[in-house]
Amino acid sequence: QTPHTGNMRYDDKVKRIPHAALSMEDAMMLARMQARGDRLRIQLKMEARTLPPAKSRNVIAEIRGSEKPEEIVIVSGHIDSWDVGQGAMDDGGGCLAAWEAARLILKSGLKPRRTIRIVLWTNEENGLGGAKQYASRHAADLKNHVLAIESDSGVFKPTGFGFLGSAEGMKVIEGIGGLLAPLKAGKVDKGCRGADVLRLISGGVPVMHLEVERDRYFWYHHTHADTIDKLDVHEFNQCVAALAVMTFVAADLPGGVPR
Amino acid sequence: QTPHTGNMRYDDKVKRIPHAALSMEDAMMLARMQARGDRLRIQLKMEARTLPPAKSRNVIAEIRGSEKPEEIVIVSGHIDSWDVGQGAMDDGGGCLAAWEAARLILKSGLKPRRTIRIVLWTNEENGLGGAKQYASRHAADLKNHVLAIESDSGVFKPTGFGFLGSAEGMKVIEGIGGLLAPLKAGKVDKGCRGADVLRLISGGVPVMHLEVERDRYFWYHHTHADTIDKLDVHEFNQCVAALAVMTFVAADLPGGVPR
Repeated sequence: QTPHTGNMRYDDKVKRIPHAALSMEDAMMLARMQARGDRLRIQLKMEARTLPPAKSRNVIAEIRGSEKPEEIVIVSGHIDSWDVGQGAMDDGGGCLAAWEAARLILKSGLKPRRTIRIVLWTNEENGLGGAKQYASRHAADLKNHVLAIESDSGVFKPTGFGFLGSAEGMKVIEGIGGLLAPLKAGKVDKGCRGADVLRLISGGVPVMHLEVERDRYFWYHHTHADTIDKLDVHEFNQCVAALAVMTFVAADLPGGVPR
Repeated sequence: QTPHTGNMRYDDKVKRIPHAALSMEDAMMLARMQARGDRLRIQLKMEARTLPPAKSRNVIAEIRGSEKPEEIVIVSGHIDSWDVGQGAMDDGGGCLAAWEAARLILKSGLKPRRTIRIVLWTNEENGLGGAKQYASRHAADLKNHVLAIESDSGVFKPTGFGFLGSAEGMKVIEGIGGLLAPLKAGKVDKGCRGADVLRLISGGVPVMHLEVERDRYFWYHHTHADTIDKLDVHEFNQCVAALAVMTFVAADLPGGVPR
């Protein structure tokens, strides 16, 4: 009885009608009633309204590069969440994992050659406004973005990454992935599920997402059950480790990630 | 975010305060806040009231015995449910399984020597009023009750039965259980979890419950999620088969079930 909420897309040719999410139990009950020919009459009280846009901001922090500070590796999550639940998995865990990866790099005393930029995108859920604004404001500078990583599939046991970029870039990323073999978190597949970092490919930026065991993600995603108790600290720590290694090495490699 | 509701028992020496069920997520959040020393202030709006008792009835049907109609084997579930959810597992499924077992016996054309009495107990959840009233009204007749079976642990894959009676009775029941070996539903353990039939042991009636794989029962029990979609038809049918075999053979055995 926990509805999985979501959004609705309308064809331009149809009239836009209000929509709401039902729980699986209620939806299946209505389907059974319909299947046996019952006349259904449903009273639905909905209070949602569309309000005018309000100001919001991406949260950005940096570890300045020691040799090429103008070259940037992004590690990121999105700081907004859906309107039900607390957004612990989507995407509070991703934000904290990116933040914690950077904190560990700082704490280790290692100085990356390039700048590591932590970005907590705003408005991922409702239009990608934060990522679009970033891509637009930094358009001239995207050529200096070496790589952009996002964690937005829940902080479950990490298994590797998805990468969208050149074949030469893929080889380099697979090489870094090899360092994560002891964690079994170094497999690199083609493609990127990070909705925010995908906004940067117009500028030619190689993008990637942290891949995890995602079979439980939709148990919680966009529901009232997306709360912090679902987060396993041990699995979360493995996400942090995978992000820290990928981010630091990509930022420190003399040759960078070929486009 | 689906509270598992339940009841509260008070020591006679303490003042009775209102109680309510929280979801696991909320309870864990409050525990974390308390553990870190936050001052908690909770506003709770409760609308539950205790109303005066109202009339309700057990539902009873019979297959008359061909040789000893005055001797009775009960097969049963309880027809009331908790106030949240639809009571599909607790205990709509048990009621339907008992009913369907009797229907199959009728349909088979077999005539049991003793009477099979299907009882759908009322008020199990809130005081066992139906079972108490039955035990009281039929007090003089309980000596003729050969066996009373209840299904009230959900209609999951059946594994056997729990039996509370004499050692001689146990041997007979184990013998009948042997017939269910092909279903792997014939194991008989000591003890009975059927709250209604347990009211009959004061009259010396051997009682038993249908045992099932109960690991999922408390996923749904006394929650809004106790709905019909949780019921697996194949597992339900196995429960029906186990009840039908146990009920018919106990009602038909020349020697009955020794007390």
